[in-house]
Amino acid sequence: MRMGEGVEWGVHCCATLAWLQGEGPVPIRRLATWFDLPQEYLKKRLQALARAGILASTPGVRGGFSLARAPEQITLLDVVTALEGPAELFGCSEIRQRGAGSLGGDSEFVQPCGVAVAMRRAELAWRRELAGQTIADLMALAPRSGERTLRNYRNMTD
Amino acid sequence: MRMGEGVEWGVHCCATLAWLQGEGPVPIRRLATWFDLPQEYLKKRLQALARAGILASTPGVRGGFSLARAPEQITLLDVVTALEGPAELFGCSEIRQRGAGSLGGDSEFVQPCGVAVAMRRAELAWRRELAGQTIADLMALAPRSGERTLRNYRNMTD
Repeated sequence: MRMGEGVEWGVHCCATLAWLQGEGPVPIRRLATWFDLPQEYLKKRLQALARAGILASTPGVRGGFSLARAPEQITLLDVVTALEGPAELFGCSEIRQRGAGSLGGDSEFVQPCGVAVAMRRAELAWRRELAGQTIADLMALAPRSGERTLRNYRNMTD
Repeated sequence: MRMGEGVEWGVHCCATLAWLQGEGPVPIRRLATWFDLPQEYLKKRLQALARAGILASTPGVRGGFSLARAPEQITLLDVVTALEGPAELFGCSEIRQRGAGSLGGDSEFVQPCGVAVAMRRAELAWRRELAGQTIADLMALAPRSGERTLRNYRNMTD
């Protein structure tokens, strides 16, 4: 079980777009060159982030992607959910209620399955941590990235 | 991103084998009938749990699976790791060091990537919760299951 590589791409693109907020929409080809990523695959991920209201997509020759809201208001959980979907890590199919072992357990099965409850508790701890960390927090951790990002971006010739 | 269904099977089988600790090895066909699961697929999961030292496999006509250690010493993390592997949920491929955006960032890249650090922190919270919950805890949550499990098991005719 592993997240797709799109999550790494998505978070890094959000951070880069955060540093470049004053530069207008960033063309998809520039973002692909920025991280040496395949443009078409990256596009699909950025479109998913746009559908989730994290990025804004501007059409046209001077179009591209920009943040749709402030870096303080984009959490890692937002990005992970936009790219991996909202499904829980653990899927409970209630096997406790199936087969020969379930006979006579009817009143017990009114309570949620203890396995699912325990798995959900762990998953909530994971989601809580992801929800507590924003793109702005990542920017604060790498203060020198901002200057370098702007310099490199302005030097791009595409 | 989702765990395979084998995790649900594995945890429930561990709990059932915990209730049946006095009954000797439980044949794989009985466990499959118990939860109405496909025997061959279930076998692969139980063998993985045996390789991880969670279950013991006894060969022969009267053979089957039993717990290899006490229910207090089997955590949900043990079962998840045995069945899903030890890989982290988030894979970092250091895209920050690739492409046009990375120019001039060499000294920065000595530090671990903030995205990977943040993702790891969330993942540790998940693993910590899973490691804090044992098969014995699940048994304590469903005290009436023990009696029912024994009764149903002894009534099995296969």
